[in-house]
Amino acid sequence: MPASDLTIGFDADDTLWHNEVIFERAHERYRALLARYHDTATVDRTLFGIEMRNLGLYGYGIKGYTLSAIETAIELTGGRISAEEIRSLILLGQEMLAHPVDLLDGVAETLAALSPRYRLMLITKGDLRDQERKLGKSGLAGHFAHVEILSEKDTAAYRRFFERQQIAPERFLMVGNSVKSDILPILELGGAGVHIPYHLLWAAEKAEPPPAQPGRFFTIATMRELPDVLQRWAK
Amino acid sequence: MPASDLTIGFDADDTLWHNEVIFERAHERYRALLARYHDTATVDRTLFGIEMRNLGLYGYGIKGYTLSAIETAIELTGGRISAEEIRSLILLGQEMLAHPVDLLDGVAETLAALSPRYRLMLITKGDLRDQERKLGKSGLAGHFAHVEILSEKDTAAYRRFFERQQIAPERFLMVGNSVKSDILPILELGGAGVHIPYHLLWAAEKAEPPPAQPGRFFTIATMRELPDVLQRWAK
Repeated sequence: MPASDLTIGFDADDTLWHNEVIFERAHERYRALLARYHDTATVDRTLFGIEMRNLGLYGYGIKGYTLSAIETAIELTGGRISAEEIRSLILLGQEMLAHPVDLLDGVAETLAALSPRYRLMLITKGDLRDQERKLGKSGLAGHFAHVEILSEKDTAAYRRFFERQQIAPERFLMVGNSVKSDILPILELGGAGVHIPYHLLWAAEKAEPPPAQPGRFFTIATMRELPDVLQRWAK
Repeated sequence: MPASDLTIGFDADDTLWHNEVIFERAHERYRALLARYHDTATVDRTLFGIEMRNLGLYGYGIKGYTLSAIETAIELTGGRISAEEIRSLILLGQEMLAHPVDLLDGVAETLAALSPRYRLMLITKGDLRDQERKLGKSGLAGHFAHVEILSEKDTAAYRRFFERQQIAPERFLMVGNSVKSDILPILELGGAGVHIPYHLLWAAEKAEPPPAQPGRFFTIATMRELPDVLQRWAK
């Protein structure tokens, strides 16, 4: 049992393990495939537009990305892309889904140190099967009292989550790499947030950081700094 | 508050609303697209084989079906399928994801009658976003004390679910169309099951019904018969 009634929520992708870098590498191969048809900027802009249009139907995750990438490739080549090239996109998606889980620096040690003292929860969005797979491979599952996989991480979704889990927002702190999905909704609900920027950020997650809120909003460079922040927050 | 501490779990697809019929209609268009290359039996067998091979990576749901259908079409045509035809498969998947939710006969009235008396839970597997969308459109969300979307519905997953929700299996009854996913694991754990067969069943869900277990396993033709069964079970 944790020593305190404080709950720490952790985002998963690019907070506990590398994720966007896998998309980035896949996207470089995607650009190369379409390079004889269009410049990089056109490919990026068109794919992003189609991803955003499909987001309501597909939700987050690699399967939706793959379908949008195929749709974009057909559109950008005027149907000249070959079936074999489309097959290579399907295989690219499958490679992404089978990718090993690489933990970020300091994550394993920090979670092991915190889990006896706080109630830790994993709160992530995206594809159910894929997030469960990554958690299973991460070796971190035993540290979490609860795992929540949401289809969206906005204020309404966190509010329902707090109700279901009977969490008082002022006893809750969220740790994540996305200001938009991990910090702003939590601050709005009265909780605290720790932002750990990752060197890559998907365009759909871009948001302005909130104004300074001493004692409620912290920015750190690595997970190793989290225990110190918790000391300052829990005072 | 429900009048009793009995919990009734409901499967969603083909138990509360039509689902397999949407796949079946899409699959007829898929067979037509490939008819000039292969007979129906070859198309069905190859697609099913590729779906099963990809299931671990993709999980259940329409996005994984669409990706497997494209992969199968490329394989079965030796790469001769056109980009435009592949685009039609992507659009077919998007149509399926946007399909209206058609409730099965008697579902709305039966849930409305039962929800004041029992604790009702929705327990489904598949794509997070798509299941949430269907529940939202169904008008049934208000009847459920809890909604659980699992990536798999086997004995281990139900056992963890019972622990999380602090449910005693002998106080739990599951209602669903799949003997494999809704009945057998629950009976194994000591709960009760009500099977309501749907006229279509995906090959991956096929299983032999269990031997007669009076008072613990029931088969009915429509949701309208459920209140009578509950009377017999709860005695």
